[in-house]
Amino acid sequence: MYRPLMLMFGLMLGGEAWGAAAANEPILPVQPAKITDAAKVELGKQLFFDPRLSKSGFISCNSCHNLSMGGSDNLPTSIGHNWHQGPINSPTVLNSSMSVAQFWDGRAATLQEQAGGPISNPGEMGFTHDLAVDVLRSIPQYQASFKKVYGDDGIKFDDVTNAIAAFEETLVTPNAPFDRWLLGDKKAISATAAQGYQLFKSIGCVACHNGEAVGGSTFQKMGMVEPYATKNPAQGVAGLTGKDQDRMMFKVPTLRNVALTYPYFHDGAYWNLSEAVDVMARLQLGRKLSTDEVSQIVAFLDTLTGDQPDFKLPILPPSSAKTPRPAPFN
Amino acid sequence: MYRPLMLMFGLMLGGEAWGAAAANEPILPVQPAKITDAAKVELGKQLFFDPRLSKSGFISCNSCHNLSMGGSDNLPTSIGHNWHQGPINSPTVLNSSMSVAQFWDGRAATLQEQAGGPISNPGEMGFTHDLAVDVLRSIPQYQASFKKVYGDDGIKFDDVTNAIAAFEETLVTPNAPFDRWLLGDKKAISATAAQGYQLFKSIGCVACHNGEAVGGSTFQKMGMVEPYATKNPAQGVAGLTGKDQDRMMFKVPTLRNVALTYPYFHDGAYWNLSEAVDVMARLQLGRKLSTDEVSQIVAFLDTLTGDQPDFKLPILPPSSAKTPRPAPFN
Repeated sequence: MYRPLMLMFGLMLGGEAWGAAAANEPILPVQPAKITDAAKVELGKQLFFDPRLSKSGFISCNSCHNLSMGGSDNLPTSIGHNWHQGPINSPTVLNSSMSVAQFWDGRAATLQEQAGGPISNPGEMGFTHDLAVDVLRSIPQYQASFKKVYGDDGIKFDDVTNAIAAFEETLVTPNAPFDRWLLGDKKAISATAAQGYQLFKSIGCVACHNGEAVGGSTFQKMGMVEPYATKNPAQGVAGLTGKDQDRMMFKVPTLRNVALTYPYFHDGAYWNLSEAVDVMARLQLGRKLSTDEVSQIVAFLDTLTGDQPDFKLPILPPSSAKTPRPAPFN
Repeated sequence: MYRPLMLMFGLMLGGEAWGAAAANEPILPVQPAKITDAAKVELGKQLFFDPRLSKSGFISCNSCHNLSMGGSDNLPTSIGHNWHQGPINSPTVLNSSMSVAQFWDGRAATLQEQAGGPISNPGEMGFTHDLAVDVLRSIPQYQASFKKVYGDDGIKFDDVTNAIAAFEETLVTPNAPFDRWLLGDKKAISATAAQGYQLFKSIGCVACHNGEAVGGSTFQKMGMVEPYATKNPAQGVAGLTGKDQDRMMFKVPTLRNVALTYPYFHDGAYWNLSEAVDVMARLQLGRKLSTDEVSQIVAFLDTLTGDQPDFKLPILPPSSAKTPRPAPFN
């Protein structure tokens, strides 16, 4: 899948340095976000941080996709409404626009579709789409923002998720050391990291972890060579299709910012990147790596941390006397 | 208490306009924060947003003193560890440096002392001071930041709360319309708001709500003329002293940004400012205000919303392999 993408980006960028450095590599540099509708992105940012989209008034998108923490919550599985223990590790929202689909099982085709899921999930934000819209409609500043961006008077739930998705599309992390290396700065990564990258390619990690997101473009079986031992009951795509061949098929996670998005795998069972690399090599590639090899690959993975979100803390518009009250304890 | 303060600020500022406009008023304009140790403030900001100071790894200072929402959580009482229902309304952290003491009952003398409370409260962040320090010591970037700011190698809990307090001291909200009016811009507030301010003074609200914070400088009995009806068992200062005369004695809350810090009172029982004004006038002053009078005072209170926090979302340093893991579910 990455070759057409590479060609496309090669044509779009057209830079000699870029062509020379990156065109032969299966990983592509992250492109900075191009913001075409700043008002929509600002609205989406407010909504992303607004806990009033939850029943409790306490949980926002940012609670589990914390932009101060690599776009994740750094927990094995998330905490939801009424301290519900979530079933699966919260994937980073950073660079999620590059994924072929959303959620570990890909059940949402788009970021917009994804954004509606947690709001109405009883174990996450515990609300309903209608009630979330009722809250937003009661807030004059939101009314004005939606009218400005979407042109009509009512606030529609599709516009809510559209704005959140537009904000999320800006959450890309360019300028990682590895990307600078791809673009020709050979001093941007250490010799150990460069060795790690060669190993990452030669042993086959790159077969799934490639492209701009270094993953996110395919579904693969967790435990291809050797079964993955876990107490987590998630079955991946089979949970949607019921088909045996889809058991343990999960979306390949992005490795962008992987040093920030611990703990790892869909069950969040591994906290250290070195352990995660060892497990992946054994279970997916049938290969036992030496300690040195693991260290080299970890050094490479550490170079995938890009520029983190860089914006002002959003200030949320206040509720009005008409705003339905949050209900955290009933 | 406010007259010496006024004199002090008058001497410090020395501006003719300020002196002429504000010296005769019992409310003082909020002074912008003067940041003398930027590194300490930045460190404190990270700590304020860092959920790793809680047992769950999910709750930070900002969870209940949300700087996107007037420095409060806009809930009657807060949600704590394991979805514990808190006993009292979370006061705004904005302008809290101006308070004579911290918490509704004033049990912490300083912001620094206050900052330690929620971290080790089983129903709030559910951690211990020692465990919080263990987490911070395991994070190389925090080690470096503490060494830079405090000069020694170990991280001490007193330094943690000192840095958080230093950040909180910057959370002042100057430039409210009412402050611009105080400073001579007579068009900064509406005629209705100006009438409301005159009423606020003439009926006696200003006896307790005065000074720079428009409150925060004294303790008063909730229900001075008529008892306050509430299901909340909090007894205010009497909870500390056991003395009958301290029953229902609470710190007078600041009215700065009061339009953002609903719901109101220590039990968070009133969501609308107009209701809160009506209750206060009846219970504290023995006065039943007309609808117009309430509207005027609310219009005045709305002019107390100042500049909200204006900084970049902090990016937190990642944990290391040595970092103790959060324990949200045990």
